[in-house]
Amino acid sequence: MYGLIGKMRAQPGQREALIAILLEGTKAMPGCLGYVIAKDKLDADALWITETWDSQASHKASLALPPVQAAIAKGRPLIAGFGERFETEPVGGHGLAKPR
Amino acid sequence: MYGLIGKMRAQPGQREALIAILLEGTKAMPGCLGYVIAKDKLDADALWITETWDSQASHKASLALPPVQAAIAKGRPLIAGFGERFETEPVGGHGLAKPR
Repeated sequence: MYGLIGKMRAQPGQREALIAILLEGTKAMPGCLGYVIAKDKLDADALWITETWDSQASHKASLALPPVQAAIAKGRPLIAGFGERFETEPVGGHGLAKPR
Repeated sequence: MYGLIGKMRAQPGQREALIAILLEGTKAMPGCLGYVIAKDKLDADALWITETWDSQASHKASLALPPVQAAIAKGRPLIAGFGERFETEPVGGHGLAKPR
């Protein structure tokens, strides 16, 4: 498995709008076992995304999917910047989707 | 929802053993919608846990569950320390379990 944990900062007041775009654009990504979007409790403009993939190749391929491309295009103006980013190798746990 | 993203460092060489204990001890936690364990790619002794709960109360209650207590007791000697810890409010995404 391949994983990413990353922080994104929305333009002031745009976090909800950015989240809506991300939720919409990431619904159907082959090889995606988990994609959890969470608001940072301390920073009103920040959010965290924890991604779990069956492989790094699936993650890379997802970036070319039309809904993901659309989300990137729509979301980009709402993004102020990126924070921490951790690359991981997920090993399991609870709540991961079955591979499709 | 309530979430935590946290880094844990195992004693040298003990990451696999610690992961096995965590996987075993966290299988059945009421209100837990996601519990993803992932190895850090850069630090051979570090791991990340991304937790998603239906409520902060469920997270708190989980710490008193016998299997979780057993995992804490067994795992504690294998833990060298804790790193970053981010408290979140998950909003959705893909791969979360149904509440139970």
